Amino acid sequence: MGSLVFHRQFTVEWGHCDPAGIVFNSRFFEFFDWSAWLMFEAALGVRPADLASRFGIVGIPLVDAKARFLKPAKFNDVAEIASQVSEFRRSSFEVAHRISIDGELAVEGSETRVWAARDPQNPAGLKGIPVPAAVMERFKVA
Amino acid sequence: MGSLVFHRQFTVEWGHCDPAGIVFNSRFFEFFDWSAWLMFEAALGVRPADLASRFGIVGIPLVDAKARFLKPAKFNDVAEIASQVSEFRRSSFEVAHRISIDGELAVEGSETRVWAARDPQNPAGLKGIPVPAAVMERFKVA
Amino acid sequence: MGSLVFHRQFTVEWGHCDPAGIVFNSRFFEFFDWSAWLMFEAALGVRPADLASRFGIVGIPLVDAKARFLKPAKFNDVAEIASQVSEFRRSSFEVAHRISIDGELAVEGSETRVWAARDPQNPAGLKGIPVPAAVMERFKVA
Amino acid sequence: MGSLVFHRQFTVEWGHCDPAGIVFNSRFFEFFDWSAWLMFEAALGVRPADLASRFGIVGIPLVDAKARFLKPAKFNDVAEIASQVSEFRRSSFEVAHRISIDGELAVEGSETRVWAARDPQNPAGLKGIPVPAAVMERFKVA
Repeated sequence: MGSLVFHRQFTVEWGHCDPAGIVFNSRFFEFFDWSAWLMFEAALGVRPADLASRFGIVGIPLVDAKARFLKPAKFNDVAEIASQVSEFRRSSFEVAHRISIDGELAVEGSETRVWAARDPQNPAGLKGIPVPAAVMERFKVA
Repeated sequence: MGSLVFHRQFTVEWGHCDPAGIVFNSRFFEFFDWSAWLMFEAALGVRPADLASRFGIVGIPLVDAKARFLKPAKFNDVAEIASQVSEFRRSSFEVAHRISIDGELAVEGSETRVWAARDPQNPAGLKGIPVPAAVMERFKVA
Repeated sequence: MGSLVFHRQFTVEWGHCDPAGIVFNSRFFEFFDWSAWLMFEAALGVRPADLASRFGIVGIPLVDAKARFLKPAKFNDVAEIASQVSEFRRSSFEVAHRISIDGELAVEGSETRVWAARDPQNPAGLKGIPVPAAVMERFKVA
Repeated sequence: MGSLVFHRQFTVEWGHCDPAGIVFNSRFFEFFDWSAWLMFEAALGVRPADLASRFGIVGIPLVDAKARFLKPAKFNDVAEIASQVSEFRRSSFEVAHRISIDGELAVEGSETRVWAARDPQNPAGLKGIPVPAAVMERFKVA
């Protein structure tokens, strides 16, 4: 039994690239973010914009993000991103992202996100609440 | 009698630039936006984050933006932006922006923004309401 | 006889949106830019990254960009962009962009771009050179 | 003996923030990048745009970036970034970044960068070369 892997292909745009002609590092974190949302949509059948209201949460904010840059991604490269939940913890989870170009791994990274609700103790703040078992279930694949 | 001009200096960053080594066009609209907020702060003495609540509006959304690119702005160039309200209309206003590098005009542009409140007829929408005379007054300089 | 229209569909991402929950204005100029490149690819069968070398130019830099925002674009909206060259001049051209959501026009804008080569008089600068007739021809549709 | 710490203050802009009203994660990697360049300028007295040519390198590309988000940064927050080289290795180095708001740590992160020259074996590629001792020396403070 494994974990659902979400795949998406996209092309590196002119505006993604810096004067070295390669994707500027911050853009990869945009790619990761969007792929995480789409992975949830693929697993749960819920539009990203409806995820919070559907599950009574405020959102899935990031508490940690990282990336290793192995090969530069250049203007017009066709990139393939593969994203999966590598671990569910009680009220947070880890999303692993791998971006490949021409079949070679170019960037790998991860995000730690919280399944977050309004904090009853502090209405301006958030707190993690348990990820529903039914959610975790939907990420399992035979 | 003239109109208050807000000035700010900033340096062009690596991440602002594209593979041609010059500022990617969308970034200028970020510079315009932030300068518009700071111009309001300079005129009214109200922090950008407090502008809406202070005046009972939802915000000052854009309905039009334009720019002419006369000279490229390159990595590390020191840019000077000058922003002013070029016209107040009943419930909207025009902000003119000029970005100069080494004393030469590099980009000129403008934004049309609305003084916008929640639309009582349609709570999901916004409508322009009259810009208060006291606000307009603060943009006049002797 | 008309002019080729390039169409692309995309979904508004979380990272495109501002605290008002709508696409931040500078993002539309990213969408315009990328659609202009893809329109050239569709018309000429040349990858964006090969456009300059294929035609002996340095690029197609912007000299003017503008947008009118008619309806907000929100997180998760499915947007349809339609881009076409609305006019070829001697060494520049105008690209008209229309972004629709649910069949309603949300943003319309345009870019003026130059068919630009290295300036022999000033190697650090660029100058417009005539757009080849064969290029213009490829944008015509019966 | 310690290591030079570069400090910069900036204000969180509307365009930095997402629909949750807080800085979108990718923006922090823009802040890190720019602060790394300015730290080099502070240490070496060389403009970012001249760093490569001054030292016969191609640049200081990133091979790794990470961030931990401890407290959200909101629109209009005044952020203070402190950046320093936490370790010089033979041909790479680690830059540690800390972003504080109201004196409280909000984000901490790091970048691993390479002191990179054109690879003589593969002109399309880069390779790390030793960081000059004179460069490392300039980051030491009594």
